[in-house]
Amino acid sequence: MFESLRKHLEQVIEISDQEFDEFCGLLSPQKFKKRAILIRPGDLVQSEFYVVSGCLQVVHTSENGDESILQFAIEDWWVSDFAAFFNGTRARLTVSCIEDSTVLELNKNYLEELYGRIPKFERFFRIKLTGAFVALYERIQNGLEKNSTERYQEFCETYPNIEQRVPNYKIASYLGIKPESLSRIRRELQEKL
Amino acid sequence: MFESLRKHLEQVIEISDQEFDEFCGLLSPQKFKKRAILIRPGDLVQSEFYVVSGCLQVVHTSENGDESILQFAIEDWWVSDFAAFFNGTRARLTVSCIEDSTVLELNKNYLEELYGRIPKFERFFRIKLTGAFVALYERIQNGLEKNSTERYQEFCETYPNIEQRVPNYKIASYLGIKPESLSRIRRELQEKL
Repeated sequence: MFESLRKHLEQVIEISDQEFDEFCGLLSPQKFKKRAILIRPGDLVQSEFYVVSGCLQVVHTSENGDESILQFAIEDWWVSDFAAFFNGTRARLTVSCIEDSTVLELNKNYLEELYGRIPKFERFFRIKLTGAFVALYERIQNGLEKNSTERYQEFCETYPNIEQRVPNYKIASYLGIKPESLSRIRRELQEKL
Repeated sequence: MFESLRKHLEQVIEISDQEFDEFCGLLSPQKFKKRAILIRPGDLVQSEFYVVSGCLQVVHTSENGDESILQFAIEDWWVSDFAAFFNGTRARLTVSCIEDSTVLELNKNYLEELYGRIPKFERFFRIKLTGAFVALYERIQNGLEKNSTERYQEFCETYPNIEQRVPNYKIASYLGIKPESLSRIRRELQEKL
């Protein structure tokens, strides 16, 4: 369960066996069934989750019940309601499983303490956070300058093979388009091949 | 010029005089006239800028010339095309001055070297980046759940007194609404007082 995490860390920092063991000691493995909810609006969010296997979604629900999918998380991604996690405020989002999923839960308080003890983990999370910030920044720009077909193609690059795992209407929600538009885009791309 | 920066740092980390001097040694003070351009689309972005005085804007220009303001930066803010800055890619945005401005330029290469020498600066920038990430994350959520009036009120909290400094149509662009709608919102809020 921890091999993929070690690779994930070593893409960014070098770590010894002992440092890796210390980090693993802070993580709590959890298994969830499809449709299980990890975070609900109103929860205090103390944890972020590393995805070992499965697929999760981060959903915003409006007052009239409309759902918008803000993020998917597959193997090797971190997921949470990050605004609530970092700010210590109540969750506004729902994090739930689209498939049976195994995650490693990391509590915020452990993390602060780890930064003091082994500063290279602070480096690791700074660099991961930079990536997440840039991805969000670019997503806003893409919304301004790319059409739905281009955004769909980018989606397929960001989440390889996710199309086989996630229903169409969820992908359409993530892209901010109607399911019919997504079907049309796919058909057109298929015809071009 | 450097006093505000020292306060800005000390809101997050404790630093000695010597550490502060080392940091200041990496910064290059620059003065720009109103309308001066610091970053253009296509530029390699090696620097981020701390605003000592003045006001800058980050603008996205679409193929047909439509401009969307993604960010303002006033005193005590950092500004850049952050996707290009962090990824080492070409700028897609324009950063320019709305007022005569004084900034401190920080080169990326100096920064990496500083992290190795004084790790607490890595902590400082991790925490600042966390704040920027959360702000972006919440801005996307606010776009989904708040109406224009609420988003305008939030804007006024984020950028105190900026209304006196920035033309209406720029604030409307930032909020993604028409200038007429902004005038109506202001009138309605005024009547409620």
